[in-house]
Amino acid sequence: MRQSRLFTKIEKNPPKDEESLNALLLERGGFIQRLMSGVYSYLPLGLLILKKIEQIIREEMNAVGGQEILMPALHPMDNYIKTGRENISDLFHTQLGNGSKFVLGQSHEEVVVPLVQRFAHSYKDLPVAVYQIQTKFRNELRAKSGLFRGREFSMKDMYSFHLTMEDFEKYYETVKKAYIKIFERTCIGDKTYFTYAAGGTFSKFSHEFQMLTPAGEDTIYVCDKCKVAVNDEIKNEHPKCPECGGALGEPKKSIEVGNIFPLKTKFSDAFGMRVKNEEGKDVPVFMGCYGIGLSRLMGAVAEVSNDENGFIWPKSVAPFAVHLVYLRSDDKNVKAEADKLYEKLTAEGVEVLYDDREEKSAGEKFAESDLVGIPLRMVISEKTLKSDSVELKKRGKKEAELVKISEIKKYVQ
Amino acid sequence: MRQSRLFTKIEKNPPKDEESLNALLLERGGFIQRLMSGVYSYLPLGLLILKKIEQIIREEMNAVGGQEILMPALHPMDNYIKTGRENISDLFHTQLGNGSKFVLGQSHEEVVVPLVQRFAHSYKDLPVAVYQIQTKFRNELRAKSGLFRGREFSMKDMYSFHLTMEDFEKYYETVKKAYIKIFERTCIGDKTYFTYAAGGTFSKFSHEFQMLTPAGEDTIYVCDKCKVAVNDEIKNEHPKCPECGGALGEPKKSIEVGNIFPLKTKFSDAFGMRVKNEEGKDVPVFMGCYGIGLSRLMGAVAEVSNDENGFIWPKSVAPFAVHLVYLRSDDKNVKAEADKLYEKLTAEGVEVLYDDREEKSAGEKFAESDLVGIPLRMVISEKTLKSDSVELKKRGKKEAELVKISEIKKYVQ
Repeated sequence: MRQSRLFTKIEKNPPKDEESLNALLLERGGFIQRLMSGVYSYLPLGLLILKKIEQIIREEMNAVGGQEILMPALHPMDNYIKTGRENISDLFHTQLGNGSKFVLGQSHEEVVVPLVQRFAHSYKDLPVAVYQIQTKFRNELRAKSGLFRGREFSMKDMYSFHLTMEDFEKYYETVKKAYIKIFERTCIGDKTYFTYAAGGTFSKFSHEFQMLTPAGEDTIYVCDKCKVAVNDEIKNEHPKCPECGGALGEPKKSIEVGNIFPLKTKFSDAFGMRVKNEEGKDVPVFMGCYGIGLSRLMGAVAEVSNDENGFIWPKSVAPFAVHLVYLRSDDKNVKAEADKLYEKLTAEGVEVLYDDREEKSAGEKFAESDLVGIPLRMVISEKTLKSDSVELKKRGKKEAELVKISEIKKYVQ
Repeated sequence: MRQSRLFTKIEKNPPKDEESLNALLLERGGFIQRLMSGVYSYLPLGLLILKKIEQIIREEMNAVGGQEILMPALHPMDNYIKTGRENISDLFHTQLGNGSKFVLGQSHEEVVVPLVQRFAHSYKDLPVAVYQIQTKFRNELRAKSGLFRGREFSMKDMYSFHLTMEDFEKYYETVKKAYIKIFERTCIGDKTYFTYAAGGTFSKFSHEFQMLTPAGEDTIYVCDKCKVAVNDEIKNEHPKCPECGGALGEPKKSIEVGNIFPLKTKFSDAFGMRVKNEEGKDVPVFMGCYGIGLSRLMGAVAEVSNDENGFIWPKSVAPFAVHLVYLRSDDKNVKAEADKLYEKLTAEGVEVLYDDREEKSAGEKFAESDLVGIPLRMVISEKTLKSDSVELKKRGKKEAELVKISEIKKYVQ
């Protein structure tokens, strides 16, 4: 994309009222824009990151047999009366002109159970795992921390249905591994811990994936040996590592970037969902649910992928792979060569943001390039063209090197 | 995708309460499922179609310089007070725990103007066109006609900002052509007419794209010579073709599949959006908006792409390119060969739905394949394998032909 055409601009001054680093930097760089507390628009650069994250999650959910669907945000209140969740405090409510009551989904158990129920009647129809990537709403009075705690946010939620608790438990382990892969692919794996947490109203435990960051809202205690953690909320009950029984480390701040949850038969029972087993007997259906907030994950990656000059996006989620920076010159050939290189790289499938602007100085361009944080900066100027070269510098590194244009390919794959 | 793994099933009996053909067939085929009137879930096959349509629209919007963003569904009521639209009857309302009032967006003028305003200060920053593909909400008391008129629906809305009315008008023509391309690519171009319609509260005219169908809610009068139409709502005012002045045809039922709309300065004025022109003077900004409902377009394609046996999806929006149908056999080699062919085609990038089910008869499989409506059916059986062949039949055609497996490639590209 040509930067001269990008309608967003780098903002020199951080926005007011933003307290969290992720939102401050994301707003300054033109990735997102706040409409109101906890509600953001994704601008072109930010949407590209969100879509990279979406695709990583989609691939890993497909790999564990998840079938992608898309459920609505408007839910009939009746379904919540069935599950006894009609009074959850952070639901948004709305109604039709005739008074029919709806809620805006912050989770989809009330929709997905009747949906799958229509198709699953026998043991032959199970297991089933369906997921969606969809917009959720949460009536948060004190939305804060940028993309960490929103009133409207993008979420992947998967639900699985099983004939037996054993089958559920096996699948739960499979999804756990898929989650670990997702956090590795988004390059927060080394900071992210499988964490034992409280189970809410209908299950003794749930499991979270918590990423260490001082900006987090949660507190966890890590077992360095097992690479797992315990959430503060169950620390009294579980003062030792649940896996090796050893001592846990000091309390550390963290942000939940995913959770997996045994639902057992709570929701399937509420809708009378039963299937015939191999003996022809009606039996209950065991469920699990598996969530990852895409916008929150983007905030988490942003929070830990930066230095004093701006972002250092991991390649897997960066909006572009290469930031081609043209330095203005009176020699029109320089711009022509830069254009040619941009067209060539783009035609080869390399994702390039091309700073083709004439009005900005080299200093301004370098500062903005650092803030935007694309992994590889490629400078083309009168000087570099004297040796038919560009200057390559990895974001976050000090060293730059001159590379012949004919040899660029090795560096951009 | 292996059909044995698909959790949805063909429903033999049409769903109750559905009056429109598109929803009846889409529900029977397992493409969508109704949660309540005007609110649908997209099941795996339906979501694939929606995504094909999304990608066509995205490509054409990018081709006319549209920059993709994603705005929220929750809007602060204050912005509607500024534009005087706070009392639109079909808005959904909701509120925060502390009483702050929000509406759910059915359009995004109130969000996009302040968003672009932050970046556009001078003539150098214009024109700008931004678009999103996002979920809209409309408080429809009488939602009906399946995907045609929903309470929650997927929409592409683009907004353009210009320094002069002339620049706007030029861009309007460009987008008009992009829309014609979109309807051609989704194979409803021959039934779809550029239609003159009323302009609402702030513009004399707007333009719609209306697709002829007896299931439509609108009435248009076509000029066969100019391939344009006039909406019934302005017929009294404009009894002749607006382009050639000739007579218009008989009234025909149609469904609006897109609209483009001059907004002039109504919304930019409401937010005090002005830019410096070349002389350094503050001047108003001219806007246009351009909508296409993705779910409605999917309903429209469904409505006209079928016969008595089910869908006949155009290749461009079909959930898969090939329906590979294995006919059960006691000879295990047949299944092994079918599996091999499925793996091979998939590896080559062909989108294949593979009916690998053992429990269904040939007759059931053929009937279901017709209902699902994938463009090319490829039958593999003991019989076809005797000549190392598969039987190919285009959906909607009577003739089938035996084709050597080694020569399939020519037929599936």
